[in-house]
Amino acid sequence: MTDTPASASYGVHSEVGKLRKVLVCAPGLAHRRLTPTNSDDLLFDDVMWVENAQRDHADFVNKLRGRGVDVVELHEVLAQTMAIPEAKSWLLDRKIVANQVGVGLIDDTRAFLEAQEPRQLAEYLIGGLATTDLPDDHRSAYVSLARESTGVREYLMPPLPNTLYTRDTTCWLYGGLTLNPLSWPARHDETLLMKAVYGFHPDFVGSTVWWGDPERSWGQATFEGGDIMPVGKGVVLMGMSERTSRQAVTQVAAALFENGAAEHVIVAGMPKLRSAMHLDTVFTFADRDIVTLYPRIMDSVHTFSLRPSDKAPGLHITDEGTTPFVDVVASALGLSGGLRVIETGGDVYASERQQWDSGNNAVAVEPGVVFTYDRNTQTNTLLRKAGVEVITIVGAELGRGRGGGHCMTCPIVRDPVDF
Amino acid sequence: MTDTPASASYGVHSEVGKLRKVLVCAPGLAHRRLTPTNSDDLLFDDVMWVENAQRDHADFVNKLRGRGVDVVELHEVLAQTMAIPEAKSWLLDRKIVANQVGVGLIDDTRAFLEAQEPRQLAEYLIGGLATTDLPDDHRSAYVSLARESTGVREYLMPPLPNTLYTRDTTCWLYGGLTLNPLSWPARHDETLLMKAVYGFHPDFVGSTVWWGDPERSWGQATFEGGDIMPVGKGVVLMGMSERTSRQAVTQVAAALFENGAAEHVIVAGMPKLRSAMHLDTVFTFADRDIVTLYPRIMDSVHTFSLRPSDKAPGLHITDEGTTPFVDVVASALGLSGGLRVIETGGDVYASERQQWDSGNNAVAVEPGVVFTYDRNTQTNTLLRKAGVEVITIVGAELGRGRGGGHCMTCPIVRDPVDF
Amino acid sequence: MTDTPASASYGVHSEVGKLRKVLVCAPGLAHRRLTPTNSDDLLFDDVMWVENAQRDHADFVNKLRGRGVDVVELHEVLAQTMAIPEAKSWLLDRKIVANQVGVGLIDDTRAFLEAQEPRQLAEYLIGGLATTDLPDDHRSAYVSLARESTGVREYLMPPLPNTLYTRDTTCWLYGGLTLNPLSWPARHDETLLMKAVYGFHPDFVGSTVWWGDPERSWGQATFEGGDIMPVGKGVVLMGMSERTSRQAVTQVAAALFENGAAEHVIVAGMPKLRSAMHLDTVFTFADRDIVTLYPRIMDSVHTFSLRPSDKAPGLHITDEGTTPFVDVVASALGLSGGLRVIETGGDVYASERQQWDSGNNAVAVEPGVVFTYDRNTQTNTLLRKAGVEVITIVGAELGRGRGGGHCMTCPIVRDPVDF
Amino acid sequence: MTDTPASASYGVHSEVGKLRKVLVCAPGLAHRRLTPTNSDDLLFDDVMWVENAQRDHADFVNKLRGRGVDVVELHEVLAQTMAIPEAKSWLLDRKIVANQVGVGLIDDTRAFLEAQEPRQLAEYLIGGLATTDLPDDHRSAYVSLARESTGVREYLMPPLPNTLYTRDTTCWLYGGLTLNPLSWPARHDETLLMKAVYGFHPDFVGSTVWWGDPERSWGQATFEGGDIMPVGKGVVLMGMSERTSRQAVTQVAAALFENGAAEHVIVAGMPKLRSAMHLDTVFTFADRDIVTLYPRIMDSVHTFSLRPSDKAPGLHITDEGTTPFVDVVASALGLSGGLRVIETGGDVYASERQQWDSGNNAVAVEPGVVFTYDRNTQTNTLLRKAGVEVITIVGAELGRGRGGGHCMTCPIVRDPVDF
Repeated sequence: MTDTPASASYGVHSEVGKLRKVLVCAPGLAHRRLTPTNSDDLLFDDVMWVENAQRDHADFVNKLRGRGVDVVELHEVLAQTMAIPEAKSWLLDRKIVANQVGVGLIDDTRAFLEAQEPRQLAEYLIGGLATTDLPDDHRSAYVSLARESTGVREYLMPPLPNTLYTRDTTCWLYGGLTLNPLSWPARHDETLLMKAVYGFHPDFVGSTVWWGDPERSWGQATFEGGDIMPVGKGVVLMGMSERTSRQAVTQVAAALFENGAAEHVIVAGMPKLRSAMHLDTVFTFADRDIVTLYPRIMDSVHTFSLRPSDKAPGLHITDEGTTPFVDVVASALGLSGGLRVIETGGDVYASERQQWDSGNNAVAVEPGVVFTYDRNTQTNTLLRKAGVEVITIVGAELGRGRGGGHCMTCPIVRDPVDF
Repeated sequence: MTDTPASASYGVHSEVGKLRKVLVCAPGLAHRRLTPTNSDDLLFDDVMWVENAQRDHADFVNKLRGRGVDVVELHEVLAQTMAIPEAKSWLLDRKIVANQVGVGLIDDTRAFLEAQEPRQLAEYLIGGLATTDLPDDHRSAYVSLARESTGVREYLMPPLPNTLYTRDTTCWLYGGLTLNPLSWPARHDETLLMKAVYGFHPDFVGSTVWWGDPERSWGQATFEGGDIMPVGKGVVLMGMSERTSRQAVTQVAAALFENGAAEHVIVAGMPKLRSAMHLDTVFTFADRDIVTLYPRIMDSVHTFSLRPSDKAPGLHITDEGTTPFVDVVASALGLSGGLRVIETGGDVYASERQQWDSGNNAVAVEPGVVFTYDRNTQTNTLLRKAGVEVITIVGAELGRGRGGGHCMTCPIVRDPVDF
Repeated sequence: MTDTPASASYGVHSEVGKLRKVLVCAPGLAHRRLTPTNSDDLLFDDVMWVENAQRDHADFVNKLRGRGVDVVELHEVLAQTMAIPEAKSWLLDRKIVANQVGVGLIDDTRAFLEAQEPRQLAEYLIGGLATTDLPDDHRSAYVSLARESTGVREYLMPPLPNTLYTRDTTCWLYGGLTLNPLSWPARHDETLLMKAVYGFHPDFVGSTVWWGDPERSWGQATFEGGDIMPVGKGVVLMGMSERTSRQAVTQVAAALFENGAAEHVIVAGMPKLRSAMHLDTVFTFADRDIVTLYPRIMDSVHTFSLRPSDKAPGLHITDEGTTPFVDVVASALGLSGGLRVIETGGDVYASERQQWDSGNNAVAVEPGVVFTYDRNTQTNTLLRKAGVEVITIVGAELGRGRGGGHCMTCPIVRDPVDF
Repeated sequence: MTDTPASASYGVHSEVGKLRKVLVCAPGLAHRRLTPTNSDDLLFDDVMWVENAQRDHADFVNKLRGRGVDVVELHEVLAQTMAIPEAKSWLLDRKIVANQVGVGLIDDTRAFLEAQEPRQLAEYLIGGLATTDLPDDHRSAYVSLARESTGVREYLMPPLPNTLYTRDTTCWLYGGLTLNPLSWPARHDETLLMKAVYGFHPDFVGSTVWWGDPERSWGQATFEGGDIMPVGKGVVLMGMSERTSRQAVTQVAAALFENGAAEHVIVAGMPKLRSAMHLDTVFTFADRDIVTLYPRIMDSVHTFSLRPSDKAPGLHITDEGTTPFVDVVASALGLSGGLRVIETGGDVYASERQQWDSGNNAVAVEPGVVFTYDRNTQTNTLLRKAGVEVITIVGAELGRGRGGGHCMTCPIVRDPVDF
């Protein structure tokens, strides 16, 4: 018998190496609560047909498993976590508080949630708890007051529909992870759920955390996994966007350097006019030396290199000036032939449409084998012509939140590749 | 000699009693940094001609002083505070941190600010610090990185143009105050500045704080003074709006009740469709029994009464149903004749225009004497016909941020009135 | 041999009687040109996967044909029309003019279009003609100038993606039709295409036109078929919305009354806050006495009745005051038991989502048999429980333009029903 | 006695020559009808304090007159026109029609307007006619129907607040004028008013019209005077913007060339991202060889030259490629020393603010003497340092519609200058 936790072997060592373990989150209650009038408050782009989104997500999971990937689903792992009494207490102590639930509703809400089975509790934690979910005898003038409230204030726990995008919330970067402070306050509790999982679930306890803690305030230092890619050879790509700030990028780089976990962080300064965009919505890897990208955005990226330094604050910045981002990346990976670039396919109209439909948001299960949405037929064809095996999933519903396979997956174990 | 601090005598006991001491904040550097493209990020409605706004604000201050009011200006009182070494350290320790300024820029920024005279330091604390404010020899690759950032991330300290509205940040409610968690994250540091003032400035130390602390996280419990009115007789009005939540309203009520500071909180549930609006943009007092209001909004208010209770959580809620807000208020104040209501003046077009131009945002210096903007001539005339003395200030520039005299004043000492 | 044209037998005498002939328009080139950045200019809500939209539209057509409906497709009927030389000249004379194509590009554009086969010409007329569609040797400094233009000005002929909604462009109201002046200028040419069809195609010539002519200017008198329903017994429902104005409603009513084509026009004054909505997005018939409606909008409708009058201008208006719209309709149809109302199904969230997904936008092929989108499962279930036969089509792509089966069909021959 | 009409001597031969006669329009009823909720429908950026806007506009007029300019005011000249019975009939025949006023309201509306004095009639023609303007005995169910209408449909004649910007509606280009088809349909009637003036007023009849007629439909060929500048030496500058299209620019150029009125049209292709902007909001002349401009926009202009040609369509286009717009202009004017450029003043923030506040929208009364708004102190100082005499007017209210002195003036007689 050994004491080594399972998590000791976790780590993500590339963007395209053999994917062995991954975290996803199925669509569910949170998306059933979305409407055209509340989708802005809940930070989700569009409403979806939830049953079909669930069917298509299940197909995605099945195909990943068919490729030998150990797929962990957030509702399940959170339910397992909530079956642990200390974990349940820890999380409810932080969720069922006056600042969130409201004075006068804490005891009833806590009692209601304590009485739920772990799976149902996980549903509410992710899907949100509306005042109408409480049984009638729990309703009171406090509930009437809540119903006059606007936006997410009407909920006892707000829905978290962006949990669908597990990529953003935590990032495994080589042998450790970050617990990310997400940009929108309404998404902060996503990271709290993950801290409960990493703090109590036997499959996750003992994981090394490089940076981040949802119980602290991070100010402008916001960080989202859609901007972050550990590409191998000690290199990490980081998009600096509206969501991922210089304040965070430099802190994470310093933490990685201090722990010897990385040697070179390449920052892609995203163009200001398209501020809401993650790096992985316009640039992902399809093979060890193949990327798919949207040139109209990537051509405007301004690149910086961060490297370790003996002097405080422990890093050194180089402005890469006019050198194209892909060239800086290819050079860092030692790809003498450079990166082969597959642009978003089709004419000027089709290309913009496919970027919008997550056409560049591929996720690899091994070198040269990627998942994408079926609808981006032209980009998929170009990838196939380049020798990439493209496995498609239905994007009609899943794609409405503006994320694809890369956004919907948080790799936990992925092998390195040779360059 | 006595140890009693000046603050022992502070307190606001009505909306229209003799105003003795008030906090304001002149327009300045923060407004010079506003442009049409950054005003959304900086949370200010429009750009203004700063020199004229300063002239008109100075006129407002002079007229207040002419009425015997002790007017405290935020730049001045913050400068006085920053002249106290411990205060300066305390505030810079909290402002010049990696999460805000960014790794690699802390030392230079701190050194630059430490070298400023207190008045100049106060200017930067309120007006923001841009990378271009640093001398050339402080510029580095970190500064280049900052310049590629979007929104408020480009600043070393973001501008705080909403300091103009001192009403929102702190509220004196009878003998103590609240340090408010403001709704927008970009305004949080306004309260931090006030905590420095209340914590160190000799005129303010020792003040009783009922609730709130800018160094803690408040989640959904946001609270803005534009929604809050201590009207006298232990009654406090609170607008429940997009900015002021039920989570905060109930906590503050409980704190007031627990301290015996109030006996009745009347909550005005603002209509959901006009969510961004503070109560004082549509309803203010002009005399002990006269209010000016905008009927198209106030007619849709849903009213609740909160009163002390022996049982946890220390308060009891009554849904006032269809009883009009003004009737609940009149009854609570014991006004047997009810409140006299002056509606926004003019035809349907003029009335909407004047509400927009802060026509209902009057602030009283004593019973029956109010300040308003000159441009709302029709509402001003109706107030005058009702016997109210109306002193006007120029609103052409000051009004562009969508706030009037009530928003621009934070009463610190105001007498009670008889009802 | 007889001279009676086919069109002599055309007419729409109810909303739910046996549907015998209908006009639809398949998705195509116009939708391939849609992108996230031009969709506002082209007046379409979202981009779609065109191939799948075409598949789903073909399925809709097949199912209609399976029910014995003669389905006419606009590309086909326009191609047939363009095969008639005079028709082609007539239409190109009106499309290829300096005000649209631009000076200096007329001759080349006309020559290019004249050389196309009728089917290809119809594709360009509906799908638009981009400067990139011209062969290289037709390109010139005029083309360069066009490429610097914004919005629809960059096209030689702008795409008409809203042709998908044939309902709007023309309305058969009993034995004649209207050629509708659509609200947005960018949609005006849709009606011009229909005038070519009705003016030259042998199946359509000789149709009676009650009102409307795309070659005239109609000012504020805009009229869209999504607001118009000839329900039988000489009654016509007309939504008065942002798109269909009082100026048009009263003119059409007067024209119908003058021709003895109708006796009662019931005007549904749509609530101002939801101005972009057609009546058929919130109210359609599913059987002779069953309607499906979205109560949150329909409850706010203000109803007027227009009836013939001997005095100028030939009509008399009755303000129906607080009488519910459905009661006015039921009474006009002589339904002593009133209308049975099927509300949008599900909880408050699902109901709003299904209205948004065209859940109330049913189209009947005979009494009690309707087509709807598959995704509105809850409303479909309620209709089925009420005894309605519901045939579903896939809405994942077709629904992205915010229209359902009712919007996508323009009935040409429909039987009356007994009431 | 002579038959030569006054208009025979009219003409604008430069941007900075001695200004002798100009058309302006005072703020008034149209602006009193503006509110925050209808300003989008009425196409005006903000609400203004009308009384003060009138005061500041009167000051502008007085100062122009003090410089010897003959200032014509639109309400006055329209009133004089309406005093001519045929003119009144002509205009009311075109305004009081079913497509605008609505069936059933024509007779009462016409009778009401016929009974007005000419000055009052002019007020309604410019300021709009609301249903509430009719006396009570004219009110009917038709009026009730109108009140349920949205946007401009609620009016019997919509307000025309953009008449303030007389620059846009008509352009004198050397010895003749254009009657411009404005971009927004809601502004079309502005040109109709001008056609009445030019068709009937004795001071204007007989003017040469190069192009345009508000009684015709112009499709995409829209043209606004804010984009047009006859700079002298047969050169005309034309901004190609969202409002002024290639379809119009080429037609007007062809008309000018055909009449020998111009020899060179320089087209400034405005950047697509700032589509709503007229050329004169970022570029105007202050002296024969001095321009003031906003570099962040003007640096992205793509320039074309249009010149007469013997071949159809009578013009030849040259793509000026990367040659800066100011260089093309200087060369066309034969300015061997080039144009002296005064950029918008101040730091990056101030510069953007002043452009927004019409800082570059100067209008000259003679070479080196311009009018600007007082608030753009930094740009005004730079102009003064360059030797330009700057006369300021108050912009606090007038500037809220986003136009300055250049926008508010339509020169009718202006001398040439020597180059």
